Amino acid sequence: MAQRIHRFAPGNAEGGADQKALLGGKGANLAEMANLGVHVPPGFTITTEVCGQYNAAGGRLPDELEGDIRASLRWLEQQTGKRFGDPANPLLISVRSGARASMPGMMDTILNLGLNDEVAAGLTRKTNNERFVFDAYRRLLAMFGSVVLQIKSHEFDAAMTRARRAHAKERGLAVTEDVEELARLVPDTALSAALLRGVVDDYQRILGEQAGGFPSDPMAQLLGAVEAVFRSWNNDRAVLYRRMHQIPSEWGTAVNVQAMVFGNLGETSATGVAFTRDPSTGERRFFGEWLPNAQGEDVVAGIRTPRPLAKTATSAGQSLEESMPTVYAELFEQQAKLEAHFRDMQDLEFTVEEGKLFLLQTRNGKRSARAEVKIAVDLVGEGRISRDEALLRVDADRLEQLMFPSVDAKAAPPAVAHGLPASPGAVTGHAVFSADEAEARAERGEDVILVRVETSPEDLHGMKAARGVLTARGGATSHAAVVARGMGRACVVGCSSITIDYELQIMTARQPSGENVMIRLGELMTIDGSSGAVYLGSVPKVEPRLGGELEELMRWADATRRMRVRTNADTPEQAKKAHQLGAEGIGLCRTEHMFFDEERIPVMREMILAKDAPARRLALQKLLPFQTGDFTALFREMRGLPVTIRLLDPPLHEFLPQDPEQLEQMAQLMGVTVPEVTRKVADLHEFNPMLGHRGVRLAVTYPEISDMQVRAILTAACVVQKEGGGVLPEIMIPLALSKRELELMREVVDRVSQEVFAEQGVTVKFKFGTMIELPRAALLAGEIAETAEFFSFGTNDLTQTALGLSRDDAGRFLPEYVTRGIFPTDPFVSLDQRGAGELVRIACERGRAQRPELSLGICGEHGGDPKSIGFFEQVGLAYVSCSPFRVPIARLAAAQATLHARGERGSSTV
Amino acid sequence: MAQRIHRFAPGNAEGGADQKALLGGKGANLAEMANLGVHVPPGFTITTEVCGQYNAAGGRLPDELEGDIRASLRWLEQQTGKRFGDPANPLLISVRSGARASMPGMMDTILNLGLNDEVAAGLTRKTNNERFVFDAYRRLLAMFGSVVLQIKSHEFDAAMTRARRAHAKERGLAVTEDVEELARLVPDTALSAALLRGVVDDYQRILGEQAGGFPSDPMAQLLGAVEAVFRSWNNDRAVLYRRMHQIPSEWGTAVNVQAMVFGNLGETSATGVAFTRDPSTGERRFFGEWLPNAQGEDVVAGIRTPRPLAKTATSAGQSLEESMPTVYAELFEQQAKLEAHFRDMQDLEFTVEEGKLFLLQTRNGKRSARAEVKIAVDLVGEGRISRDEALLRVDADRLEQLMFPSVDAKAAPPAVAHGLPASPGAVTGHAVFSADEAEARAERGEDVILVRVETSPEDLHGMKAARGVLTARGGATSHAAVVARGMGRACVVGCSSITIDYELQIMTARQPSGENVMIRLGELMTIDGSSGAVYLGSVPKVEPRLGGELEELMRWADATRRMRVRTNADTPEQAKKAHQLGAEGIGLCRTEHMFFDEERIPVMREMILAKDAPARRLALQKLLPFQTGDFTALFREMRGLPVTIRLLDPPLHEFLPQDPEQLEQMAQLMGVTVPEVTRKVADLHEFNPMLGHRGVRLAVTYPEISDMQVRAILTAACVVQKEGGGVLPEIMIPLALSKRELELMREVVDRVSQEVFAEQGVTVKFKFGTMIELPRAALLAGEIAETAEFFSFGTNDLTQTALGLSRDDAGRFLPEYVTRGIFPTDPFVSLDQRGAGELVRIACERGRAQRPELSLGICGEHGGDPKSIGFFEQVGLAYVSCSPFRVPIARLAAAQATLHARGERGSSTV
Repeated sequence: MAQRIHRFAPGNAEGGADQKALLGGKGANLAEMANLGVHVPPGFTITTEVCGQYNAAGGRLPDELEGDIRASLRWLEQQTGKRFGDPANPLLISVRSGARASMPGMMDTILNLGLNDEVAAGLTRKTNNERFVFDAYRRLLAMFGSVVLQIKSHEFDAAMTRARRAHAKERGLAVTEDVEELARLVPDTALSAALLRGVVDDYQRILGEQAGGFPSDPMAQLLGAVEAVFRSWNNDRAVLYRRMHQIPSEWGTAVNVQAMVFGNLGETSATGVAFTRDPSTGERRFFGEWLPNAQGEDVVAGIRTPRPLAKTATSAGQSLEESMPTVYAELFEQQAKLEAHFRDMQDLEFTVEEGKLFLLQTRNGKRSARAEVKIAVDLVGEGRISRDEALLRVDADRLEQLMFPSVDAKAAPPAVAHGLPASPGAVTGHAVFSADEAEARAERGEDVILVRVETSPEDLHGMKAARGVLTARGGATSHAAVVARGMGRACVVGCSSITIDYELQIMTARQPSGENVMIRLGELMTIDGSSGAVYLGSVPKVEPRLGGELEELMRWADATRRMRVRTNADTPEQAKKAHQLGAEGIGLCRTEHMFFDEERIPVMREMILAKDAPARRLALQKLLPFQTGDFTALFREMRGLPVTIRLLDPPLHEFLPQDPEQLEQMAQLMGVTVPEVTRKVADLHEFNPMLGHRGVRLAVTYPEISDMQVRAILTAACVVQKEGGGVLPEIMIPLALSKRELELMREVVDRVSQEVFAEQGVTVKFKFGTMIELPRAALLAGEIAETAEFFSFGTNDLTQTALGLSRDDAGRFLPEYVTRGIFPTDPFVSLDQRGAGELVRIACERGRAQRPELSLGICGEHGGDPKSIGFFEQVGLAYVSCSPFRVPIARLAAAQATLHARGERGSSTV
Repeated sequence: MAQRIHRFAPGNAEGGADQKALLGGKGANLAEMANLGVHVPPGFTITTEVCGQYNAAGGRLPDELEGDIRASLRWLEQQTGKRFGDPANPLLISVRSGARASMPGMMDTILNLGLNDEVAAGLTRKTNNERFVFDAYRRLLAMFGSVVLQIKSHEFDAAMTRARRAHAKERGLAVTEDVEELARLVPDTALSAALLRGVVDDYQRILGEQAGGFPSDPMAQLLGAVEAVFRSWNNDRAVLYRRMHQIPSEWGTAVNVQAMVFGNLGETSATGVAFTRDPSTGERRFFGEWLPNAQGEDVVAGIRTPRPLAKTATSAGQSLEESMPTVYAELFEQQAKLEAHFRDMQDLEFTVEEGKLFLLQTRNGKRSARAEVKIAVDLVGEGRISRDEALLRVDADRLEQLMFPSVDAKAAPPAVAHGLPASPGAVTGHAVFSADEAEARAERGEDVILVRVETSPEDLHGMKAARGVLTARGGATSHAAVVARGMGRACVVGCSSITIDYELQIMTARQPSGENVMIRLGELMTIDGSSGAVYLGSVPKVEPRLGGELEELMRWADATRRMRVRTNADTPEQAKKAHQLGAEGIGLCRTEHMFFDEERIPVMREMILAKDAPARRLALQKLLPFQTGDFTALFREMRGLPVTIRLLDPPLHEFLPQDPEQLEQMAQLMGVTVPEVTRKVADLHEFNPMLGHRGVRLAVTYPEISDMQVRAILTAACVVQKEGGGVLPEIMIPLALSKRELELMREVVDRVSQEVFAEQGVTVKFKFGTMIELPRAALLAGEIAETAEFFSFGTNDLTQTALGLSRDDAGRFLPEYVTRGIFPTDPFVSLDQRGAGELVRIACERGRAQRPELSLGICGEHGGDPKSIGFFEQVGLAYVSCSPFRVPIARLAAAQATLHARGERGSSTV
């Protein structure tokens, strides 16, 4: 028979941190701390195996368990010198759940077990502190009542409310009907011993009426509590949490039974929290707060001002170091021991009971992004951890915070609206509601925020001119989000609580209170693209401060990762920025963004309105020098690194204006009638443009467009090569669903390349490939690879098609889909590995089987998402490509992915 | 060494019909006919293997081939009693390609080989018919010049034009500059021997100038022609054709060398065509036409009126039976022999050369749909073929023609426009441009055709009222097409050459000539939904005539097929019609169509505009009795057959009006402001509604809608069961992409079913399942089957998502995609088996692995397409569901699929 109970006391525990499966996370950690000689209150852990037996028996504790518990209780009495149920010298205990994986708040806890009327009376005599005793007693009754006896907690709330009223009357305060107001007015701590005794009486009555009464026998209390914890493993919240976090229900929970200690037994008692390093800066200094004669919750409640731990110039004798020098010395020694042992910054909770120090908990401390990087790099310098470990310690997603200013949450007023954080950075500017206005004001030197229901390629010049972009619609991969990230503009999207009136030029933000906040044209506003918050006016910001640690970490990441990191960039400026941030090539240049320039859009429209192929060719002839110039600049910037250029992708109607005024302008410019233009625009309207006439479909029907683009790419490549620069162009065909489409495109490319090379007198090596962004293409990847030399996964569109989910429309139900556990996260942020990802995997396998040297990469927005990058490592992609500002994140995430893959292959990483 | 050449002569051939791989289709059939003793002109076939050798050698004939050809020529001279190249008694021969699979017009033919100046002179002396000889000679020169020497044919055309001009001048006709007009005025047959001799001289000169001259050596002519045929296997047309029809290029072509026979050598010569049965009615009578002293092309050219073969009351001595009784008797005997041998109605070509009958060709004759059914059933009655063969002989798609009237192509004026045939039947009515107008006129008893750019659910009442529907946009599965098929209304969609002006109420059809044809409101027009043609005014129609043969065939089909056939029906009328046509249940009832009724749509809109769930529930409460009534009627109609009901699928904005007038009406009715309504409509706008907030996503966010629908379904089921009728409801969840969505829906269904069964006092068995219409759902079918008891493949949406192709928008490029060989056919008509189909296959496998008893069916439009039905048999679906009027087609196609599957498993079908 396996041991059902494992005991722990300082310097001596039956178990350790490696036994989380058996003892649960909390139990294993308590054992570990105890073994280290840390002063934890002694106790014992009932194993997760017992939980399994309990469940297997249909909710019955094993017969032998009671005997085991009694034996361990005797041992605990010896450890503490107190006795369970002895009024003269009572031992009080806590019972807590603790599963293998952390499930915060999901299961139950009961404190102060061992109290009954007699024990309470005895303890009052012993402590001479009736208020303390009856506060503990009423808490026990409420917790036991709700957790063990399953009485609704509002019953207990009503009794507390009566006590508060009585208190208010006693003090002659105005008695409010509003229960919550009353609770603010009369906190628990204000209630006198007499009132608390009344509450205890009330609670006893409730327990009597609803559940046959509170067991005065402490052993009955303990057994009831243990069973309740096991039962709580299968409560609705816990089951849902497990489903969402893929935690097997077989794991079960352990039960931790531990002696209670109290920091509120007088002036020689105290409680506090401590960090082994500064969680904000990462600096190496012991740091924390404490309060004498207090309980843990008092430190965080903010009613009393906590005191510093260490003596400082201003501590004025208040520090623990000065007040309780011995305790402080002991605490200091223990924190150092703990950090050394756990090899990471620790966050400790401690209590001093009548001069004796107890450590209640230690855990890896939460820290700012900046501290996270500094601590990881410092620990390597101190010889505590390896470089690989340091790389794994930093959350790649958080690096973003180190590169952009953010709103100072402590100093800022409440936000007036919240949307999805789409592109990081906090910026303040004057609200404008059209791209033209944005441009005009920016030219006058004004900072502006462009506010739109959604953006389209027509807004590009306005987005470029603005400091930030706010949209009411759209998700993480909407046009606004993708473009803003590419440009490095702050952006908040899908802010559904705002409505925008373009005519009046007003944005209205509905408040939960029902009120409306208006922001008018030209008024100052602030958006934080890292949090999604929107503020009225200018608000205080925190500038990023970055030491050399990040650079150091990036060097280690580059030396570690297998995958290359490229960037999605459409302009030389973006390419330059990305290059500086470490990009190793361009994975996606979206040529359509090049056509929206003021000089070019009329020619583009002329091309679209052309009656036949010859007229179209004439217009394209005019676009050719522009495109050639674009690509020449891009190739020069990237100096021999690969540059993947996607041929025209969006449906042509995206290039046409919609409003009557612009239509008229266009008609004039083109020399055609307005109805003619209107009819063409209407002709090009599509019900589902995402699934429409775009991508290679445009190229199949209008091969002259591809001809022009390929000619521009290869001419530029020849020019740069003749200048002596390296060039590595990759021509990429979007939205293919068959090999045949690629064959048709390859014919164009072959013909044009011969012509260009003859004309230029040089030959340039280039690659020809395709995006894989349709399920059919993924399934037929084998034969597509016969023609394509590379694949680049367009996971945005692949997600849209595989899941049948429009990124621009999903906002209305996607949040609910995440809450309800249908998706673990927004599939446009983190790749849906089982659906879209399965297609990526299939395409990799089939493509490689056909062409072993096939180059595989990804250029969807997932290329900058750490979780997705982990997946791309698994399927063996050669590179990821992401927005310029996510390049450092991708570099780190790729290194982490390499380390995880190595770990999975079984080689040691330390 | 394999035999390079196989000879054939009546009663004796080296080969037969089973040697198509080696001899090509034509060669094998000639051998087969010869072996039967049929009088074919003798000849020999150079095998496809030689073509392989020719290609393998980089386009060089094997050295031994010339010797083999010479030997076979000697044999052919013996057979015919003529000599190749002998001016006194010349043998003329033809050289024709003939591959294993028919590739009509793809490769080349050369006739009259063996002529040169001397032979022509000799033959003139022999036949005393200079015109005949020089007509043959100039044809040889033109064919040889273009096929063997690859001279552009316009060179020869110019020479002919000169001869025509000369003729016109000779006759004093007005000489037109228009070449085509001239060719109509002066046909080839009008040219005199002298003019033709001039043409021959001209041709000789062209050949001399462009290609070193025409080889006067007949053997050189023959070798050149043989090589040209082999070469033509790889011409562009042939390569494209092979790619489109998946014909391996390794097959190669054979070359058939055959003695020429001439029906134009005088009054004892003749030519004609014959059918062994009436190709129009299927009646068993020998039937055909002939002309004395004529060539094959004269019979079809229509310049001379052909005469009947058999003697009739009105034949007036003109029949072959009267003119050449011996030849007729021989022909009659041979046709009977051929039909008996090939066990199908034959279409023969024959030539009589100086009293001697030659059969040039026999093939299975083309026939009307009606004849196809009758002949197949008659042949079974005559003991010629088995029932299984009869089932396989009928093209299931053509059955449609037997159920609807069609335009009488012979009597009708030219069409003014052509669209896609979307729902069969030819109907005439007054043109209307709005659903309301359609309804108003229909109520007055007028027949109307509803003409729209496209239709939406708002047009339903107009479509119901109309006899036919014409749209300018959309494809085979557009809203108009799907709904019209369901309702049994004739429908033509995607008629892109028309433009519609709703304001002026005029439709304009652009003509190829550049002219426009207008059809105004109320003017009569005709559409033929079987051909896609649109006519001005009323045109003559052919009513379907149907004997008992179709019923007989259907009985055999039902006894043979494995798959069940259900129907897609939303109303009791549709269900009734489908039931009559043999449907065995409802595979898809689209509940959304029930909400567009005049009484209901305001309530539906009230529900959509509701501010919160309670308000929504109030509106739903009003819809409940309507839905319950709908389902009760449906269950009663289907009497215990399965009825699959899909919960609400389309995005809610489809139920809201768009135009200002209707918005105002709605606001009034709802008692809210117009801006409020407008904002709600704008709020619900989606960029890609196909990928938007619809299907189960609506049910997840508004579970109260599902609650109402499930309540209505189960209440109706209880009511009908209590009446003593059988009920088999299947509740179907649309657009699921995860198991979790189904779990959430299952909770609603379980709760509601308990409530309803308690209320009704009975329990009804029902099934719970889902549509599989998203790639992700197909990939995760295994776990989805844990919750779903059945899958119904929604292949319309699966095609849209797997291929990234909007059915409503694809019209702009889909035709080009088919022409360019990217798709073999429109993937919305015939399932894309390699893309969407692969997902169906995966889902079937994974679903069945999880739940072996899983019921699998399909309810997309492909359920009525014979080719797709063959695929569904392969993957083992239990049933297909299609529009009511395609049920007979599906029954036959399912039987054919069963037979094919049996054949593939190796068991005999005869």
